[in-house]
Amino acid sequence: MAASDPTGGRPVDPSSGALRPLGLAEARITAGFWADRQRVISEGSLDHARAWMDKVGWTGNFAIGAATGPAEHRGREFADSEVYKLIEAMSWETGRRADPARVREIDELVALIGGAQEADGYLNTAFGRPGQQPRWSDLAWGHELYCAGHLIQAAVANTRVHGPGPLLEIAQRVADHVCATFGKDGSTGICGHPEIEPALVELYRVTGERRYLDQAALFVERRGHQSLPPHQFGAAYSSDDQPVREATVLRGHAVRALYLAAGVVDLAVETGDAELLRAVAAQFDRTWARRTYLTGGMGSRHMDEAFSDDFVLPSDRAYSESCAAVAAVMLAWRLLLATGEARYADVIERILYNVVATAIEDDGRAFFYAHSLHQRTPTRALPDDEEQLGFGGGPRAPWFEVSCCLPNVSRLLASLSTYLAAGDDEGLRIMQYATAAFDTRLADGRRVALEMVTAYPDDGDVTIRVTATDGGAWPITLRIPGWAVGATVTVAGITEPARAGDTFTVRKEFAVGDEIRLHLPLAPRFSTPDPRIDAVRGSVAVERGPIVYCAESPVAEPVGDLDLLRVDPRRAPVDEAGGVAVWAHIAAADDRRWPYGDRDDEADHPPLAPLRLLPYHRWARRGPATMRVWLPTV
Amino acid sequence: MAASDPTGGRPVDPSSGALRPLGLAEARITAGFWADRQRVISEGSLDHARAWMDKVGWTGNFAIGAATGPAEHRGREFADSEVYKLIEAMSWETGRRADPARVREIDELVALIGGAQEADGYLNTAFGRPGQQPRWSDLAWGHELYCAGHLIQAAVANTRVHGPGPLLEIAQRVADHVCATFGKDGSTGICGHPEIEPALVELYRVTGERRYLDQAALFVERRGHQSLPPHQFGAAYSSDDQPVREATVLRGHAVRALYLAAGVVDLAVETGDAELLRAVAAQFDRTWARRTYLTGGMGSRHMDEAFSDDFVLPSDRAYSESCAAVAAVMLAWRLLLATGEARYADVIERILYNVVATAIEDDGRAFFYAHSLHQRTPTRALPDDEEQLGFGGGPRAPWFEVSCCLPNVSRLLASLSTYLAAGDDEGLRIMQYATAAFDTRLADGRRVALEMVTAYPDDGDVTIRVTATDGGAWPITLRIPGWAVGATVTVAGITEPARAGDTFTVRKEFAVGDEIRLHLPLAPRFSTPDPRIDAVRGSVAVERGPIVYCAESPVAEPVGDLDLLRVDPRRAPVDEAGGVAVWAHIAAADDRRWPYGDRDDEADHPPLAPLRLLPYHRWARRGPATMRVWLPTV
Repeated sequence: MAASDPTGGRPVDPSSGALRPLGLAEARITAGFWADRQRVISEGSLDHARAWMDKVGWTGNFAIGAATGPAEHRGREFADSEVYKLIEAMSWETGRRADPARVREIDELVALIGGAQEADGYLNTAFGRPGQQPRWSDLAWGHELYCAGHLIQAAVANTRVHGPGPLLEIAQRVADHVCATFGKDGSTGICGHPEIEPALVELYRVTGERRYLDQAALFVERRGHQSLPPHQFGAAYSSDDQPVREATVLRGHAVRALYLAAGVVDLAVETGDAELLRAVAAQFDRTWARRTYLTGGMGSRHMDEAFSDDFVLPSDRAYSESCAAVAAVMLAWRLLLATGEARYADVIERILYNVVATAIEDDGRAFFYAHSLHQRTPTRALPDDEEQLGFGGGPRAPWFEVSCCLPNVSRLLASLSTYLAAGDDEGLRIMQYATAAFDTRLADGRRVALEMVTAYPDDGDVTIRVTATDGGAWPITLRIPGWAVGATVTVAGITEPARAGDTFTVRKEFAVGDEIRLHLPLAPRFSTPDPRIDAVRGSVAVERGPIVYCAESPVAEPVGDLDLLRVDPRRAPVDEAGGVAVWAHIAAADDRRWPYGDRDDEADHPPLAPLRLLPYHRWARRGPATMRVWLPTV
Repeated sequence: MAASDPTGGRPVDPSSGALRPLGLAEARITAGFWADRQRVISEGSLDHARAWMDKVGWTGNFAIGAATGPAEHRGREFADSEVYKLIEAMSWETGRRADPARVREIDELVALIGGAQEADGYLNTAFGRPGQQPRWSDLAWGHELYCAGHLIQAAVANTRVHGPGPLLEIAQRVADHVCATFGKDGSTGICGHPEIEPALVELYRVTGERRYLDQAALFVERRGHQSLPPHQFGAAYSSDDQPVREATVLRGHAVRALYLAAGVVDLAVETGDAELLRAVAAQFDRTWARRTYLTGGMGSRHMDEAFSDDFVLPSDRAYSESCAAVAAVMLAWRLLLATGEARYADVIERILYNVVATAIEDDGRAFFYAHSLHQRTPTRALPDDEEQLGFGGGPRAPWFEVSCCLPNVSRLLASLSTYLAAGDDEGLRIMQYATAAFDTRLADGRRVALEMVTAYPDDGDVTIRVTATDGGAWPITLRIPGWAVGATVTVAGITEPARAGDTFTVRKEFAVGDEIRLHLPLAPRFSTPDPRIDAVRGSVAVERGPIVYCAESPVAEPVGDLDLLRVDPRRAPVDEAGGVAVWAHIAAADDRRWPYGDRDDEADHPPLAPLRLLPYHRWARRGPATMRVWLPTV
């Protein structure tokens, strides 16, 4: 395979599949919900993350230089990777929007990193220097290959935006060193934390060098044979319990499992391995059906940041790490491109609006690591300069000891426009609705341009207007979300029903100015959980369009003890100006010395009254508060 | 205060309080449920634990000798404490039942330990030798004072059974060193893991040396001011977030909080500090009402082995550590002795039958560390020689990397007879029902002896027979458990009702052969949870007498997918030969790609049929199985 177009600006660039992704130059978000979230990253998070990485010494680790002492290293063993993810985010950001100062910043960081690379290509500031552990001496926990993977991903991003440069050279030297060390005749080890796998396939896509693909295949096939040393979380923690072809569900550490699965899709696509693709798709589908929160969040155990058994989805101890959301979007996007099944775009939409949009403070300078769906004691606000020591829970904090999530969400949001649409054999498929502009070429080379205008997700009307065409007939296909019962599509004055959970194709000889008008009904609705999800039995949630709602009780303006909130499920939730309301009351507490027994809860309760809910992604933005997504019924 | 009777054989020996505990020589369990569990320890667990402690090097750590190198230390930093707890268990065991070989074993272990004590009294095999961390350099995590506490407790137990000896000398030298190091003019530090606090008060009780009590007071008052370094679990982890007088509930690491609270009761009793006693009693009462499982288990978070917020009590991720159960019994017993409130004996009974009785395999050679109330994937059996690396969950394993639970349960069971009854101002109070014999003196010095015969908890009839008396009138008071609605007491052919959750006193001039017959109705009953416990909303549990029941689906003899079990709450559970049955079915699965939505679960389900339940403490004894305590209703 030839190297992909280095200026393509595509976060992932498969050589085959049902759909062809667009690049940053072909798809731009121009206003609205996601433009706001991109601005938060652009104007807040990137500088904030950089300042903290300088302050806590993670960038400084590289300044020590290659192979020189002393071995002082600040931060956790994977701190290098955060700098790489930040460079990746900055790279996408500078592809999205010209910013020479940011490009200079990237170049300076790359120069710094390059100075820490050793003569044989090895690059990791936590291992191998005098006084440090030897290279590759702790594959299970050392994160060396993981860090190499993020370095490669940063180089791939930078190359796809700015063309080949010094970062790609550094990354290729690292990758060559990895291939030499872990190739067919080398060590048979794997990394405790997957990431090198998708990175090597992407590096193959950028460079056309087959050895990187072969090395990714070796890493994938070696995993699952319990070759990593036993430890308290078990082999599933690193997906090392079962070969990837035999597993039936994602398990263990959620981010590890999801990064691995993304790499497996990449590998399957590039090697034409349909069986491998089917295996990983089935694992994801089962995970989505049994191990995913209503928000699309994944991971329900704090201890090992892990998936739990099927249907173990506690709201109050949800882990739902921001990084798992990013990784799940990466995986679903790959499955969407490979299979063309629009339901994976439903997956992406749910995760984006309910985890990714929730993660970052409105000024970009604080973030959630984990996403509880039920906050029982009020969150607390942290001072701007206070690092959060625990990385398992809220609140949105300026920084965590482990701060993977901020650069991770940043790299996704900076490149988000490329997830809105994709090309198929003949035309264009619109997968996400936002105010945006597309300018691309069809499979046959004809240029087409569209603009999409909408107030979505506040409003369900979307107008897609053709702004350029080379002529001739071609199809525009729209995703109709699974929840959008009653959707319609209007073309040239004719309105037709569009089936929820399906796609709707308009095929015609489009002229400039032609419009397609999509209407997605956004009446708020109750959702009921599978009865096997013990944690939320007897509760309902409220959704409106793609948005999950919640009840919040800010300390400053309390609505009552949300543990005692009871909602009438027979009265449908209603749209109110600026929100959604349900009929609810705060039940009387029935405190006892022992909370179990022959209980008669027919006490006098206050009458039902409307209770205003707010989008889950807006919670914890009005000061300390309690919150719950699942509302027990009366 | 004078030193207490060294041959008293009382696990705790307060100088004042509403009730006076009996010693091992005064109260013996002679047959039945708990005699069986004591035999399991006596014939299985003690030798099993000793063999593993030799194998994994924990006893060998002491053989290195004081202040000599090399600094090799095997096991975790608190491994010394396990050896001490085992000696404590062996000490009670040799008080319960003469066993010269076991006494020799204790003496040998004591000699070994004595050899590791340093000249100034310091004794810990993990710190202070060449190549090790310096003494007291890591109070938060080092467990040095914790280990000292368990050593003192072992010495107290040994002294109370066998009189003062070398172990008491070793312990006093350690305690004197602690007092010199952490006294008024010394370090103001506290240990991350409480245990030294109750130990020092007990050492004061044994020796009469006031300095130990004063040191305990210093440790208690110093805690709660966030003097331990910040870490990811927060200051609550070590109960260091709030002064003990100001806290309203137990929080953080459950065992830490409970040991501390036990020491606080001891301190309050010995110093006559009624305010302090009230504070800790209120904390326990609130914990019992809001943070305790139906089984009496405590701790609902695996990550930090901790209490969670109020009403966060997930069944499937219950932690409910065996050690927390032992610690809660210690605390409740102290509160019972101090206050005389019989409800604390209800607490003890619930924990004993549903956590302590569940912990140990029938051969004594495997044990639960954590006690799930809902096993979704089958437990697996571990080979006899396989150590369980994770210490967070099941199954009953031969050994864990952290094996605190086995010696802890052993020390409780070996001394369990002393928890059955206590003396009050005039007579005797029977607190637990078991086949047992008592031979003690009333407060005024008169000798009385009783035998108690019962098949409890299988059967609710208990006969108490006077076997010796010095004559004159005196009262026997019986605890009527909170669940025992309809209980009766028959004396001399006259039957009277006895109120559940209260006590019933028979006062007369007892003659040898006089009988009191207590009848406790044991019809199985449904229990419903407080509606704020989200994890089990819409479910019922079945109890019979003090026993919590569960549904088990052994792999070898499956009853179906317990996640789909549905029980009819309108048809009362029934007593069946050898068990309890409810009307239930396994509902049809309604698998979907997305588990939330507008759901209509009125599918065709199989008809209801009787389902046999078994006592929770008997689960996982028939091979790999799934299990659940809380049964969702139809």
